[in-house]
This record gives sequence, structure tokens and C-alpha cells, in this order.
Amino acid sequence: MNSFQLNLKTLLDRSARYFPDNEMISREPDGSLFRYNYSQYYKRVQKLANVLKLLGIKKGDKIASFAWNNHRHLELYFGIPCYGAILHTVNIRYGAKEIAYSISHAEDAIVFLDKDLVPIMESIAHQLPKVKAYIVLDYTVPETSLSPVYSYEQLLSSTHSTYCFEEVDENLPASMCYTSATTGLPKGVVYSHRSIYLHASALCFRDVMGISEHDHILPIVPMFHVCAWGIPYAAIATGAKLILPGTRPKAEDLLQLIDSEKVTFSAGAVTLGIDMLTILEEKKYNISSLRQLMLGGQAVPKALIDEYFKKYGVPVVQGFGATETSPIVTFLHIRRDQLRVSDDEKNEIRSRQGMLLPGLEMKVVDELGKEVPWDDEHMGEILVRGPWIASEYYNDNRSNSSFVDGWWKSGDIATINKEGSIRIVDRDKDVIKSGGEWISSVQLENELMAHPDVLEACVVAVNHEKWLERPVACILLKNNQTGTTNVEEALIEWLTPKFPKWWLPDQFMFVEEIPKNANGKYNKNLLREIANQSSSITS
Amino acid sequence: MNSFQLNLKTLLDRSARYFPDNEMISREPDGSLFRYNYSQYYKRVQKLANVLKLLGIKKGDKIASFAWNNHRHLELYFGIPCYGAILHTVNIRYGAKEIAYSISHAEDAIVFLDKDLVPIMESIAHQLPKVKAYIVLDYTVPETSLSPVYSYEQLLSSTHSTYCFEEVDENLPASMCYTSATTGLPKGVVYSHRSIYLHASALCFRDVMGISEHDHILPIVPMFHVCAWGIPYAAIATGAKLILPGTRPKAEDLLQLIDSEKVTFSAGAVTLGIDMLTILEEKKYNISSLRQLMLGGQAVPKALIDEYFKKYGVPVVQGFGATETSPIVTFLHIRRDQLRVSDDEKNEIRSRQGMLLPGLEMKVVDELGKEVPWDDEHMGEILVRGPWIASEYYNDNRSNSSFVDGWWKSGDIATINKEGSIRIVDRDKDVIKSGGEWISSVQLENELMAHPDVLEACVVAVNHEKWLERPVACILLKNNQTGTTNVEEALIEWLTPKFPKWWLPDQFMFVEEIPKNANGKYNKNLLREIANQSSSITS
Repeated sequence: MNSFQLNLKTLLDRSARYFPDNEMISREPDGSLFRYNYSQYYKRVQKLANVLKLLGIKKGDKIASFAWNNHRHLELYFGIPCYGAILHTVNIRYGAKEIAYSISHAEDAIVFLDKDLVPIMESIAHQLPKVKAYIVLDYTVPETSLSPVYSYEQLLSSTHSTYCFEEVDENLPASMCYTSATTGLPKGVVYSHRSIYLHASALCFRDVMGISEHDHILPIVPMFHVCAWGIPYAAIATGAKLILPGTRPKAEDLLQLIDSEKVTFSAGAVTLGIDMLTILEEKKYNISSLRQLMLGGQAVPKALIDEYFKKYGVPVVQGFGATETSPIVTFLHIRRDQLRVSDDEKNEIRSRQGMLLPGLEMKVVDELGKEVPWDDEHMGEILVRGPWIASEYYNDNRSNSSFVDGWWKSGDIATINKEGSIRIVDRDKDVIKSGGEWISSVQLENELMAHPDVLEACVVAVNHEKWLERPVACILLKNNQTGTTNVEEALIEWLTPKFPKWWLPDQFMFVEEIPKNANGKYNKNLLREIANQSSSITS
Repeated sequence: MNSFQLNLKTLLDRSARYFPDNEMISREPDGSLFRYNYSQYYKRVQKLANVLKLLGIKKGDKIASFAWNNHRHLELYFGIPCYGAILHTVNIRYGAKEIAYSISHAEDAIVFLDKDLVPIMESIAHQLPKVKAYIVLDYTVPETSLSPVYSYEQLLSSTHSTYCFEEVDENLPASMCYTSATTGLPKGVVYSHRSIYLHASALCFRDVMGISEHDHILPIVPMFHVCAWGIPYAAIATGAKLILPGTRPKAEDLLQLIDSEKVTFSAGAVTLGIDMLTILEEKKYNISSLRQLMLGGQAVPKALIDEYFKKYGVPVVQGFGATETSPIVTFLHIRRDQLRVSDDEKNEIRSRQGMLLPGLEMKVVDELGKEVPWDDEHMGEILVRGPWIASEYYNDNRSNSSFVDGWWKSGDIATINKEGSIRIVDRDKDVIKSGGEWISSVQLENELMAHPDVLEACVVAVNHEKWLERPVACILLKNNQTGTTNVEEALIEWLTPKFPKWWLPDQFMFVEEIPKNANGKYNKNLLREIANQSSSITS
């Protein structure tokens, strides 16, 4: 039809023209709220482009951000890609090794960073010979060993507020983000103008998030984490009011923002959702403006969904996605034929990861690559492809094992029900493959931890001659109890009505501590080794 | 990111997989309702592809449809483009000359046609030597001179219901439609898979039509007219319930469908909207299920919007678009800062053509190409560009005057208010350019026709030595009254408080009949000639 390109400039341009006075709000480090509007935002984005030009940045250069969710970070979100450069949002929660690796591997030319994060950057700057400048996102630069170093606000104030953005080819990179790997260093994923545009569009569908100019949107999910799930792009495409929670926001800060700014849509980690509920028990905040609270990072317990809905009338929703998928692949959809079910049944629907977005293709397949039946029992790995799904890792020879025949192999194991809604039950490497059937370690763990005597439970596979793999449960009991045959029998009795007989663990290992990774998750690799040794000794 | 193509197959595939039981309804010529579902629809779309293969149709061949809004026409909508051929929806309301021209010009290989339209096709078939076959959209073929001729249902029943659709490049044509030209024969516009996909996506935005799986959608606008405004594509992308009104639907048929099928969204011509209101005065139909009734083809009078809203609680909405624009360019948007205005003010907002869709660029420019101020007074021509805006007419040397520097020149004259909402006030060729300022012939006509003595009014430009152009009003009075100086004075008095002094017509021509075109619109070309002659004689 024509060669008009799908890029970020068109989206920003329209919002700034049609909604110049619509507000954007950013929580400052001192807790005060900075307020400006789309018109002022766009002017500063243009100033930023002039700064990039002054600094000698070329089209295709990579520029790192190392920052919290604030308005200056949001300026980088559009200013850098519209200029034709690539925004690399560096995860501020990474260890020094991963931060240095991702900045070096991406070959970032400049690092924009928040003032309070300067010390972290100082500790690794010697490993970053290719970084040409550090720009502190503030009016002043603190005492620092970083060099050369500039103040963002001083640079901006030195330039003018018009810049004629050129048309960027839609297939050119706009941003990139690294994802932690199970083993080894992080892997980079590159997003194009086109993929961001199409993903943001899908978030605006009434059947997905329904992001609208009417919304007041609070992205709690970090802007260094998969573009804050793409929400800032969709918000700006529509002209929505954006509220950015700033530096180290605590649950109570978020509740204050929801209440005072009448937030209609927010998205963040399940743990923060739990923290907010705890505070709501003690203090009064009005969160009734929320039409949806999206929680993610892990499956949302049904009890949490129920509590938000029953006590505060807030629907908690979730989806499925990853760094490789921009990220939204599936999202809650209450189907037309489910509109009249009870609130409790709706919450049950909300406790799943939802339905495939229009525009994508997904299949849940067994080990032979055959799609599993939609019976919510058979498990399979989720495979996805589509216009906002990556097809490779950036300059990384680990691409071949994850991207096969145009599909991204998620490594996530799910069941799918007859309505087409998925439920994530495990990770591929953790699911127990017993005699051709799969056992979900996560579901066993959840039920074990529901037992009154169990503090923590971690289920892993041990090798088995006949069944290939069988489950072993590592258990940490409450109150320093020690494991006995009686306890084992009680746990088997506890699990029996809940699972098929062949799911029940063959063995229990009572431990004093369950080994964990740096990020607090069970170290299942180590546990598998221990369990296999112990199993081969005892058998 | 990857090379995944935006095409119709992905959209249909997902809906058929996830919503196989969702209904589609089609009104048969005898008034009964044919019902099937997405799964059955998809099987028939695959059968159709097998039929096309059997008939020797190649990728890129053009195939005409000549049909009402029914389920078989809807099968052509996806089956032909997904096969890789191009669906040319021929306007059944064209005269024989235009029908023959458009089929010949497009070089259609096959014509699919409704049974009741066979006589029209017979009368022109001798002018269509390149058409290889006629396929009657029915179980049987009537007595006919068309040859070779087949029954659609017989062809479908002879093939199997699986067909493996290949990936189609998104930039390849999917469908085409001809638009009437002011002078000369119709001009063809080609839509690509990509343009249809992106346009359908925009219709699903909560801030645009918000097409959803929850909707029951009745497209009244003909499927031979700009893909029924793209609505069937958006409806199928979401899995909505589609209700097709079939052969020659009358206002009462439509009301029956809205009532019985609980239609939530419908779109059609303003005239049908008026007819439905008339019937609602006499007979009881429940239309409260309508969340939006979109009317188009001409500006919607505020009184009509008020009546639908006040009597039935139904919001009437409108947009701006054309065959060249897929068609939706602007659509009603009640802004966040307008959410609390009165119902009457909201209806005033609905009486405009609305706000630019995300993804497009638009400007309203004066004769020098400069954007007019957003004061709702200055008039300018609407120019548009974007991913679903055509960049040329199909094989037509008239492209150059309409597509300039990547922009489509609409020929429509509008004002734009400070909120960015447009109001169409005239056609470029009809607006009166008086001394560098523009006078809307349409606004003068509307006010003249509101005078109790005036039956019809048509305002055209006459040449003027000093002002270049000045308005002349041709008036047909009621009850065979004859025009006098008194009447002229009364009309001037009537207009004076409503317009600037320099807008008032210099001259009145009282006529016994205002000449009209075949489609019932005023023949302003002819009137201009008459007025100019008369003016030069009298001056």
C-alpha cells in the first residue's frame, strides 16, 4: 500500500499534538511529585536529541540507561530511539559482573544514570573502556570518579527544544534488554520500532489491557525490565496520564500514589501486591479507582486475587511473557460466554495466565513437539512466534537452542484448558518426566507448603532406571522439627487426595536449609545433584 | 526483530482456535437467519481455497465479489486473500458502465455473485472477455446466459475442509475497492494484508471503536464499500459475534436484528439511521443493547444524535474516512477532560468527525499548504498519511493529483477545534474562495434549508473580478412559491445573525428544480455553469 513506517515518532507526535496538556507525574527521590505535560515532555525529548547530536552519537549507537522509573528515564525511552540510536535499559538489580558484562557486550557508548546509582557504576567503570561519557540524571553531578561526567539537566538546558526527527526504518533496533540465563551470563534481546509499536498497539485493545487516554497508569514494574512490560509505550501512544513511582518505591508509596492520583491501571510484581495488601490492613488508602491491577513475575495465588476483589473491588489480572516476547504473549480474557459466571469463578479465571493475544501464534507441545490436548491436565512447553517475539539473542551463540524453526522455546511448562487459557505449572528443566508423563514440581511444592508442619518445600527429579525420573521432596519443617517416618506418612496422606498416585514423591529429604540462588529462588540444580547422590547411595 | 508477517491468516487462525463455537449469523434472502460458528466458517474458508486451486487461480489473481452482506461474502473476505489472491469487492449500486469498467480494469478472473444480482451481470457479461467463470453464491444456479457458471455450494461440497495456507508477504495486495470519481470512471484502491491488519487493530483500541470478543456486531455498511469500513476484519480478529443483514435490508429488518441478536455495535449510512428512528416512533424495538451506533456517509445532524440518545440511550458516533484510507482516519473520542461534561455537550462532541487515530498523521491546510489554526473557524483541506492510507490509485494516471509528497489530499474541507476534533464543512471543489477566505457552501445550505419557506438550497461559487469567487444561492421554495425581492430580503435577514457579513450570498436564483446527479446529490458542476452564465449576463 505504501512505505509508511511503524515507529515511535508517529505515536509520540500525535499524543503531543492532541493532548499537550495531559499530565505526566514522576516521584522525586525526596518523595515530592514532579508534574509536567506531554507538550513539555516532547520538548525535552527534542532537547535530548540535540544533546545526543552534540555528543557525536550516531544512528545505531547503543546508549545505556541505569535508572529507576522516573520522567527522565521516560525521556530516554522516546528520545534515544526516535534519534535513531538504541536504548539499552540496564538492570540495576544485577550484580556488578552482570552489569559490566551487559554494558560491555552491548558496546554502549554512553551511560545515563540516576544519582543514587553512581556508586555502583563507579565500582565497575574500569571494566567499561568503550563508554565515552556518563550522564547523571539530575541538575548536578555528585563527587565521582566517573569521567567524563555531565549533568543531564545542564546538557538539556544548553540546547534548543526543536529537533526534526527523521523517519526511522521500522525494522531498525529501538531498544534492548538483557535477561538472566539459567547458566552463564545474561542474554540480550533487541526490540525494533516495529515490534514495540505492534506490542503497544495490542496492549490498547479493549480485549487486552485496554490502555486508553482515560487511564491514569502507574507502572510499578521497573523500566529496566522488558520496557516496564511495554506499558509506557502504550500509555504514551494513547495520551494516558502516566505516574512514575521513582526511586526505591515502597508498598506504601505506591498506595499513596494510587489513592492521590486515582490510578486506574497498575502493574508490578506479585510480592509488591502482597505487601500492599498487608499495609491496607492497617491503614486506609482508597484504591477503588483501579480498574485492573496486573501482577506478574510469578503465578498469582488465587487467595490474593480473592482478597483484592472481595475487600477492595479490585480485579487482579495476569499474563504470560518474557524478555524475549516484549513481553506480553497471553493476558486475562473473560470470554463472552463467561461474562455471567460468579465473581468467584471470574477470580478462578484470573488465577490463570490467560489467552493468546491477537497477532501471535502459540502452541503448547510435548517432548515430541506434538500439541497437548486442551484438557488442563497434559503439560507441555510453550512455544511462541509473532511480530513482537524475538528471533535471536544479540550476538550470542546460545540463540540456537532457544529459537527453533521460527518459534521461541520458552522453557515454561503449562497446561491449557478447554477455553484456551494457559496455566504455567513449571520450568522445563524442573518438571519431572516420569514414564512419559510429566509431574509439576511447583504444584507439589505448593501443596506441601500448605501443610501446617512445613515451612519450605522443594521438589526435584532423581534419575530412575524404569521411569527415567521420579520426584524427591526436600522439606524444611517448622519449629526445628526433625523428619520421621511418621511425618513422611502424614505428608503422603496430605498429598494423596490432591494428586494421581504416581505423582507422589518416592522419597523425602528433611533438611535444615534449602539452598537458594542470589535472587532468592531455590537452587534446584544443586538440589538435584544432592538428591541424586543421596538416592544412588540409598538405593 | 524477525520477519513474521502481518497477515489475515494469523488473525483468522487464532479466532477459529480460541473461539470455535462463537456465532456468525447471516440473514437469508427469505428473511430467515442462517447460523454457524467460527470453526465452521474456517472450514468453509479452507474449502474455498481448495476451490480456487481447482479453478486454476494463481497467487495475485484478482477475484470479484458482487454481493450483499452475507456469510458467503464473508468467506470470500478471508478465503481469497489468505489463498494469496486479491478480493475485488464490486459496488452493486454502480451503473452498468462503472461495473463493467471496474471488473475489466481490475482484470478480475472470476466473479462471485449473489443470485438476485445475476441479471445485472448478464447485461454486461459481453464486455468482460477476461472473466473465466461466474460463481453464484447459492446451492443452485438459476437459468442464466452467464457462462461458464457454477454453484458456490456445489463447488464447496466437492472439496475437503483442510487447506494449508502459506505465509503471505504483508505488503502483497489482499483486496481492492473502486471509488467514484468526481469526473470520469471509478478509481481503484488496493489494500495490503498489512494495511488491513493495522487498520483492524486500530479499530480494536479502547479509544477507537473498541471492537471486542464481547461485541455483537451488525455491519450495515455494505461489504462492497471499503470493506464495510474494515469492521468485519476487526470483528473476526477478536472473535466477536457477527450479524450480517443480507439482501436489501430495510430499516425494520435491521431493528429486528438489533433487538433479537442484542447488537452492541452497528455501523451504517445516516439515511438508514433516520429511517430506523421513524420506525421506532411507530413500533417497539429494544435497541438498548447498542453501546455505539456509528453513522456515516455524510455528517450526522446533531438533532439525530440527540434523539437517539434521549429516547433510546444510544450514543451515535462518527468518523472521517474514504476508500483511499481503509477508511477510518478520525473517530469520536471523548477526552479525559471532557468526561464530566453534560450529555448535551457530549452529543455536541459526537456531532463532529472526531480525532486522529494513533498511527496516522493528518494536517488541515490552507491553499498554501500551511496548517490552519485550531480555532474551529479557519477552513482547510484534510491531508493524511499512514500505514493504512493508499499512496496511489491502481493503474491510474489520476494518482498524481491526489497523492502528493506521501500525503493523500482528501479534497474534504474541515475546521479543527482546540481539542483537535475535526468538522467536515465542504468539498474542496465546492467551497467558495472569496478574497483569500473560505466560505462553506454546506453550512449556508443547511441554514437556508432551515428557513420555513425553503425546500431545497444549493450554494455555488460564481467568478468575481475582485474577490475571485462569491456565493450564489439556488433556492427551491416550498408550495410552488415564486422568488421575490421580499423573499430574498427575508433570507438575508435569516442568515445575517448566523454568519459573517461577507459570507452572505450576493445573489439568489429561484428555480423550479435543483439538478441532481445519479446518486441524488446536487449537481454543483452544472449549477456553477448556470450561475456563472446568469451572473455574467446580469452584471
